[in-house]
Amino acid sequence: GRIVRLDTVTPSEKALEIAKTTGKNAKLVELVLRESKRFLKTSKQTLIVEDLRDIVNINAGIDKSNIKGADRYALLPIDPDASARHLRSRIMKLTGKRVSIIICDTYSRAFRRGQVNFAIGLAGINPFVDYRGAEDLFGYVMQVKFSAIADELAAAAELVMGQGNEGVPVVIIKGLNRISFGEDSSFTDLVIGEKEDLFRNVR
Amino acid sequence: GRIVRLDTVTPSEKALEIAKTTGKNAKLVELVLRESKRFLKTSKQTLIVEDLRDIVNINAGIDKSNIKGADRYALLPIDPDASARHLRSRIMKLTGKRVSIIICDTYSRAFRRGQVNFAIGLAGINPFVDYRGAEDLFGYVMQVKFSAIADELAAAAELVMGQGNEGVPVVIIKGLNRISFGEDSSFTDLVIGEKEDLFRNVR
Repeated sequence: GRIVRLDTVTPSEKALEIAKTTGKNAKLVELVLRESKRFLKTSKQTLIVEDLRDIVNINAGIDKSNIKGADRYALLPIDPDASARHLRSRIMKLTGKRVSIIICDTYSRAFRRGQVNFAIGLAGINPFVDYRGAEDLFGYVMQVKFSAIADELAAAAELVMGQGNEGVPVVIIKGLNRISFGEDSSFTDLVIGEKEDLFRNVR
Repeated sequence: GRIVRLDTVTPSEKALEIAKTTGKNAKLVELVLRESKRFLKTSKQTLIVEDLRDIVNINAGIDKSNIKGADRYALLPIDPDASARHLRSRIMKLTGKRVSIIICDTYSRAFRRGQVNFAIGLAGINPFVDYRGAEDLFGYVMQVKFSAIADELAAAAELVMGQGNEGVPVVIIKGLNRISFGEDSSFTDLVIGEKEDLFRNVR
């Protein structure tokens, strides 16, 4: 993984400046800057960024928990889809079974308290179930329903894997025939741009 | 349930005005007004509101799909926790088993494409797993991790129940000992206020 020792990081001018105004550790701010395309919100409580992978999250997903070593932080994969594809092909080779891979990470959310697991890397799975144009139980043609099933699978996995010292890094989900294999999957389909995002300007 | 025939609704002045500027059906706008405390965003694409239950959602959660009758819409329960408690006590009486109830609904989200199931009513369950103050695998004391397990259970349920014509209104989840029963549960714990919500002012 991408583990970084904080004492090896030299903060830039910009990191020092942000650290000063926010009261945050300048080395950590420097790491967040390196992992981000732009900062969306900079406050004493939080740095919310659009990270290198276009995911909107806190601190570019840089995490301290469950990393061995007091001064060590984990960065998200540079290309989570590539990581997922690599895992997938290895598992398929070793087991002879067709599998899909979802790499997940825990996120805070707008409007809701607490964190849930989200999909941040995909291989071999269609991340959505698209109901648009299909009929419901009474023949009404649905216009909006478009389930982000990869995020729901990630959330379901967290029920078993936990976030603390459970020591369950992998969850196997079987027997769900509503979910379809797909060879061109990418987590980027789950990321919604500013223009399309209905919730982006809600205060 | 709270099923409303749209042709019985008389739009108010305010509904007519919003309908005019947004191009939406005035009767539907009137229903959304009645079900909301305040409108957070009013545009051609969407009405985002803080509804009577303090949930931030689109159209106050008023839904057309899987409602019998072309002109009929379903409103969310007035008090989803009370509905959940009622279901819980009936099921415990009939089966002799201790159960928890999560009432869920599908929502669009900020920053992510597609919808997922959220918990909107609770009975007999602690909606969170709180890791704050606990040690991770390597002895680091976690400061933020606070899993919204009720939302993850709702998301997991959607994997089976679907949103279309699957006809699976109820999902039974068993054997998860990370989740704890709790007698004072309320979905309102899952709702985060404007001041505390780190993502509220992100554009």
